[in-house]
Amino acid sequence: MTERRDAVLRREILRQPELLDQFRTREGPRVRALGRSLASRNLRGVLIAARGSSDHAAVYAKYLFGARLRVPVALAAPSLVTRYGALPRVEGWLVIGISQSGASPDIVAVLEEAQTQGCVAVAITDHPDSPLARAANEVIELRVGGERSIAATVTFTATLQALAYLAFGWSESGADTDLETVPERVRQALEVEPQAAELAARLAALPACVVLGRGFGFPVALEWALKLKEVASFWAEPYSAADYRHGPITLASSGLAALIVDPHGPGRSDLEDLRQELTRRGVWTVRAADDRFADLTFPASPEWLAPIPATVPGQLLALHLAWARDRDPDHPEGITKVTRTL
Amino acid sequence: MTERRDAVLRREILRQPELLDQFRTREGPRVRALGRSLASRNLRGVLIAARGSSDHAAVYAKYLFGARLRVPVALAAPSLVTRYGALPRVEGWLVIGISQSGASPDIVAVLEEAQTQGCVAVAITDHPDSPLARAANEVIELRVGGERSIAATVTFTATLQALAYLAFGWSESGADTDLETVPERVRQALEVEPQAAELAARLAALPACVVLGRGFGFPVALEWALKLKEVASFWAEPYSAADYRHGPITLASSGLAALIVDPHGPGRSDLEDLRQELTRRGVWTVRAADDRFADLTFPASPEWLAPIPATVPGQLLALHLAWARDRDPDHPEGITKVTRTL
Repeated sequence: MTERRDAVLRREILRQPELLDQFRTREGPRVRALGRSLASRNLRGVLIAARGSSDHAAVYAKYLFGARLRVPVALAAPSLVTRYGALPRVEGWLVIGISQSGASPDIVAVLEEAQTQGCVAVAITDHPDSPLARAANEVIELRVGGERSIAATVTFTATLQALAYLAFGWSESGADTDLETVPERVRQALEVEPQAAELAARLAALPACVVLGRGFGFPVALEWALKLKEVASFWAEPYSAADYRHGPITLASSGLAALIVDPHGPGRSDLEDLRQELTRRGVWTVRAADDRFADLTFPASPEWLAPIPATVPGQLLALHLAWARDRDPDHPEGITKVTRTL
Repeated sequence: MTERRDAVLRREILRQPELLDQFRTREGPRVRALGRSLASRNLRGVLIAARGSSDHAAVYAKYLFGARLRVPVALAAPSLVTRYGALPRVEGWLVIGISQSGASPDIVAVLEEAQTQGCVAVAITDHPDSPLARAANEVIELRVGGERSIAATVTFTATLQALAYLAFGWSESGADTDLETVPERVRQALEVEPQAAELAARLAALPACVVLGRGFGFPVALEWALKLKEVASFWAEPYSAADYRHGPITLASSGLAALIVDPHGPGRSDLEDLRQELTRRGVWTVRAADDRFADLTFPASPEWLAPIPATVPGQLLALHLAWARDRDPDHPEGITKVTRTL
């Protein structure tokens, strides 16, 4: 194992403000303009094809486009193209493929089929010369400089930022000053590292946790859980707080931890009720939020942007949990940087 | 705890053929006709609002409508209505709300808003006098006679059957003889009970399992995992086989079981590759399929109908796992039959 301070994953987590700021200045205006050009097209819906962390970014887009633009978002089942030979008919839709490498054949196949149907096909990728980029009409380049770590960190936050620029251009509502301060909020979010390290040491003693979120907090919960699995080999399962009540809550008992991701928004009271119920059942609850009562804090943002800084405490928790469990965060077993599924 | 043979859950599992047959004769023709009437409307997409098991039925609909009708399906985020005050604009879409009780306010809110937008709003419920039914233009009554068990069993298979009738009427392609034999295939699937009991005894010694599926097998994997959680308090996590490779597979090691749901279809070779990889990593793999090599068998069906009988071995496994773990399958802790989320 490399020295802790030299871990590739930690360096990439810490570089997020710089890389997000680079996207802001170099790509931001172009992506806003792309969003503006979409506004006039009267699109019927948005179909997004993605896997892993990128799929969590697609869930963010579902809330973002739904709440801010009132545009319905469907998450593609790529196997409909690769295994069943037919993408649904999506004429008049925007189709987005998200892949850091731009190399996963199933995601490429969805964009190719979308082109055949005459849709606007947008690729979000770090590789503008990838098969995914070639299958698109428009490419949003993440400019994260070839993330090296197997677990995606800056790729994820940069994808959320790219989607936020696209939605902002599309609606041109709200203050762009909020959008422009995302890199700074992510920088502030990094200050949580000592808290994350302390919680990781406690979490390491437990067999499993759940990660709960609602609305804009839900994609963050998905991403936290995947990082805890990938980086720390820790069994962590994400749920929307509402779906959790429809069944899985029956497993809640002492010995379990519940990480509750709570960006300030209309889901807060639900999450607080749930936290109290879990506490009564002996679950150790850890609240990540933007207020002084939180166990893990991230800086306050308008809710539509909060998922970006709110992701950071989960990345740091996963990193320190790996160390607490004597795992090398740079070398998770059995997975590679580029996964090619069909 | 009641005598095993008297468990409400077991009685409801065993009554599925009878209740599905009742739906077939009493509701089938009407639902096919409703499907036919949708075919001429040139619908832009289908939005489905559901929670828990009903949400897994919605995932089935995504493959069913996608592969057979080439209609895109979006799963609603009900909180967009209840918490963010806006359903996306879905004029020209079909909107379906699925709820056994018809009482969950968030699902009702989505249908009400769909009506406001002038959409065709369909309720799938066991309660034709429920708030959900009142919020719909068309009601598909499941006729499962007020399922009593907290864990949904026949509600789920009846919902899949209802969706299959709807899709069949819509496309009028394929043989309706296949559709008509679903209750009989479910009856045959019940014969797996001794195998399920034997596997449950082995599974009980393990701390957790994953449940894997692809395409039409994926919603079945989701439902199996929820049953194992709800009924047996057993930690079971479902994944699409492709998403599993994009990260969570790193946790695969000896001591873990992987239940692989494999209806005969174009995803079979992927699942077999994955099964071999997991076996090499020391995972105990259990294959549920429609051939003689399976550890748990269900009768062969055309793939679009296979999820209905393929659900049954998972129900029986959960039931016997509850007993093997000394749990009462009729009284899971902390959940109630009707969950009202907002």
